[in-house]
Amino acid sequence: MLRFLDLAHFSREEILDLLALARSLQERPQARALEGRILGLVFFNPSLRTLASFQVGMRRMGGDSIVITPGLGTWQLETRTGAIMSGAAAEHVREGIPVLASYCDALGVRAFADGKDLAADLADAQFFSMAEVCEKPFINLESAASHPCQALADWKTLDDLRVPTRAKFVFSWVYHPRALPLAVPAAVVHMAAMRGMDVTVLRPEGFALPRQVMQKAQAAAEGSGGSVQETSDRVAALHGAHVIYAKEWGCTSHYGDSETDAQLRAGLGEWCVREDWFKEAANDCRFMHCLPVRRNVAVADEVLDGPRSVVKPQAFNRLTAQMAVLHRMLANQGR
Amino acid sequence: MLRFLDLAHFSREEILDLLALARSLQERPQARALEGRILGLVFFNPSLRTLASFQVGMRRMGGDSIVITPGLGTWQLETRTGAIMSGAAAEHVREGIPVLASYCDALGVRAFADGKDLAADLADAQFFSMAEVCEKPFINLESAASHPCQALADWKTLDDLRVPTRAKFVFSWVYHPRALPLAVPAAVVHMAAMRGMDVTVLRPEGFALPRQVMQKAQAAAEGSGGSVQETSDRVAALHGAHVIYAKEWGCTSHYGDSETDAQLRAGLGEWCVREDWFKEAANDCRFMHCLPVRRNVAVADEVLDGPRSVVKPQAFNRLTAQMAVLHRMLANQGR
Amino acid sequence: MLRFLDLAHFSREEILDLLALARSLQERPQARALEGRILGLVFFNPSLRTLASFQVGMRRMGGDSIVITPGLGTWQLETRTGAIMSGAAAEHVREGIPVLASYCDALGVRAFADGKDLAADLADAQFFSMAEVCEKPFINLESAASHPCQALADWKTLDDLRVPTRAKFVFSWVYHPRALPLAVPAAVVHMAAMRGMDVTVLRPEGFALPRQVMQKAQAAAEGSGGSVQETSDRVAALHGAHVIYAKEWGCTSHYGDSETDAQLRAGLGEWCVREDWFKEAANDCRFMHCLPVRRNVAVADEVLDGPRSVVKPQAFNRLTAQMAVLHRMLANQGR
Repeated sequence: MLRFLDLAHFSREEILDLLALARSLQERPQARALEGRILGLVFFNPSLRTLASFQVGMRRMGGDSIVITPGLGTWQLETRTGAIMSGAAAEHVREGIPVLASYCDALGVRAFADGKDLAADLADAQFFSMAEVCEKPFINLESAASHPCQALADWKTLDDLRVPTRAKFVFSWVYHPRALPLAVPAAVVHMAAMRGMDVTVLRPEGFALPRQVMQKAQAAAEGSGGSVQETSDRVAALHGAHVIYAKEWGCTSHYGDSETDAQLRAGLGEWCVREDWFKEAANDCRFMHCLPVRRNVAVADEVLDGPRSVVKPQAFNRLTAQMAVLHRMLANQGR
Repeated sequence: MLRFLDLAHFSREEILDLLALARSLQERPQARALEGRILGLVFFNPSLRTLASFQVGMRRMGGDSIVITPGLGTWQLETRTGAIMSGAAAEHVREGIPVLASYCDALGVRAFADGKDLAADLADAQFFSMAEVCEKPFINLESAASHPCQALADWKTLDDLRVPTRAKFVFSWVYHPRALPLAVPAAVVHMAAMRGMDVTVLRPEGFALPRQVMQKAQAAAEGSGGSVQETSDRVAALHGAHVIYAKEWGCTSHYGDSETDAQLRAGLGEWCVREDWFKEAANDCRFMHCLPVRRNVAVADEVLDGPRSVVKPQAFNRLTAQMAVLHRMLANQGR
Repeated sequence: MLRFLDLAHFSREEILDLLALARSLQERPQARALEGRILGLVFFNPSLRTLASFQVGMRRMGGDSIVITPGLGTWQLETRTGAIMSGAAAEHVREGIPVLASYCDALGVRAFADGKDLAADLADAQFFSMAEVCEKPFINLESAASHPCQALADWKTLDDLRVPTRAKFVFSWVYHPRALPLAVPAAVVHMAAMRGMDVTVLRPEGFALPRQVMQKAQAAAEGSGGSVQETSDRVAALHGAHVIYAKEWGCTSHYGDSETDAQLRAGLGEWCVREDWFKEAANDCRFMHCLPVRRNVAVADEVLDGPRSVVKPQAFNRLTAQMAVLHRMLANQGR
């Protein structure tokens, strides 16, 4: 595997293989599989799980990693092609990325959306400008438009919990003080559809997922026997849910317009998941969130501390799922 | 060992065992004792010795570590129970700590005092809120109320230098431009008492150590045959001293009142340790400080660069003492 | 090797030996040569290549490293001797450096020029104040006056490309929005002279390299059979060039005077290397730059993306050259 950029680049069988490898590595660790391998991790944005789990994952298999954080101890990096670099950035990714790649055996890059231009963010140009100039294996640590590591980890969590494939998966918008990116919504809705689930995207008016995102999920559902629909009717959506997956994102009707976004979300404070959201859900309905989560703003303590929440297994599966990706990319490579 | 939070949680014999292990590891390194073990280090506050020595300690024994610095490349973390998280913190320690613990074999956390409410700081609630949600071995890298790694290292330094148990140990307040926490004073005074020394806490009016801190040290002295007293009479205190340990801390008579603190310390600039502090001390009186130290503000160059100073052996013993703690926690564990 | 501070401290034969070792390690890696060795890396200034390549270099040979960034997660460090430390710095390098050295097997330090006082910067006092108090092997990761790792890597790149020793090496000033330090100009001009090349320093009026820098290069040229000259005549300088090495630096006629520097450079925007700079150069003339580089400000895209540019091999050779230095310092040491 040379690229891990989006689950859509893989067949369902390839993903199932990766998940099987993840389970196998979890049960029977291969402490020397990546001996001598070094992963370069480049973070344009903050991280906790990704930062920690990739470092640990490499070490659990005998490899190692280095962390580069542009602007924190290292140069700010320019990503725009053809830029006249008279601003804050001292270096361009056209130098920075190939140079880091030349030192390492693989690179992972996190580069969030700008949040200004929807088409640009969905095209993920900034991220691909880096993938393109990297000759080594390359991992998406969350780009503007996707977060495949999260999606793969969540798939594994659903499998670990024996959530049936055709279960009702409700992906719900929740409140946040400001607009957050679309990467996790796009990746997780697509993943659930690709897994074959009956996906309902629940969101208030103004926060519909972009057509492009919905169409990609629809296409995945067609291949897997799942389904995808969207609604702003919370009661109907939550009825019979087997999984409620909460996530914050920005207004899409006026994408990048922070004033309108703020007005739209001002009245949406009650989109904070509380125990009563589960009243008409399936008995054993699970609660998921990719983290980080603002307690009592997006999700109430009672839910996060209650028995439905599987946010910690989800986070732990970042490690197990990524170890499979790293193993596929780097084990026995060139040996 | 599952927790290393405060020396008071251990018997004198257990501490002597740890120190023996530290000496043994120093003489006969065990380069594979922690193979495959990963320590997560979480720093809410700056660090030099702790940051460096824990990373090195793990590696010297074949293990490894990751460093997480909330707010620097990773999310700011909320610690208050029940908080409505609409502020700067994107994640709560109730998620962050268990998630990191799930990736690692042990965690260490540094979380300094807020410096506003003495009772709250001495109760160390912020720190214990993290210890409570960590199911893996947990190390105090300096909390509001304690710094057991420093205390253990200092005990070893006193042993290495063959400072007699019943020697006079003067723990003196020294000047600093602003209020610093009570963790080191509390931990080191307790340690010296637990070691069996005759401890004199020397401090100007307004800077007496809290009753709770003194009582804890008294209790330790009772068990060890040592003694603890306090005074603001510098001449009497320094007379016959075998060790002068200098440390900066905030006003306790008006704890958290930065204006009064500033007024009180304004006239105390001569509380900077100079060679003449040792005039009536024992001939071979040693000078100690936990570092970092402001030269010519808290301690004069002549003392730090002179033959009495053992601040560098103290700092080196952070490594040796912590290796013993790590070995006890992680070697052969689950094997 | 106990110190790697400047190529001038080594004979030409010693450098050739280091380069041979670099080539050997590149072809036949020694994955266990530095087992158990730990390098401490201290960065007072930003870094990409140095930060990444030293960490990777240690790991490629079985060792490891820790990174300390004063002011970012660790204390700000004072460097001035005798300072009364009432400012921002909480710790002095007279404690910080020996303490880190006591944990590690070698230290590397980056400390750029202040850019205020030319004599002080060329004397490199701040850097040497740290080298002096370090009892372990010590590496210059770029000081005010030198950058030997860059120079050694560039020498290797010239050798790798089979650029003849007596070729014409043009070291040209290029535009940058503000004054940059003299470390790379001093180190690279000296290196090219020491390699035996015919060096031409090309720079606008006001930007002549300091006499001390030119004399040092002259002395090296005398020993190697090379030559060193300087000019502000770009056409003459570029004529017949085998290598054009571009670099930004500050005005030297009014060193540290940022207003005059800004005025002088205001009209020099066309000192941006474009393809037409190579019109009268040798056919196979190479383009070099140490990176980071501001695209379309210092060097045009057409040059950096064109076939003449060897900036990526240069950066890669930071790794290979430094591995030789680390091997010489740390392999088999004390065994």
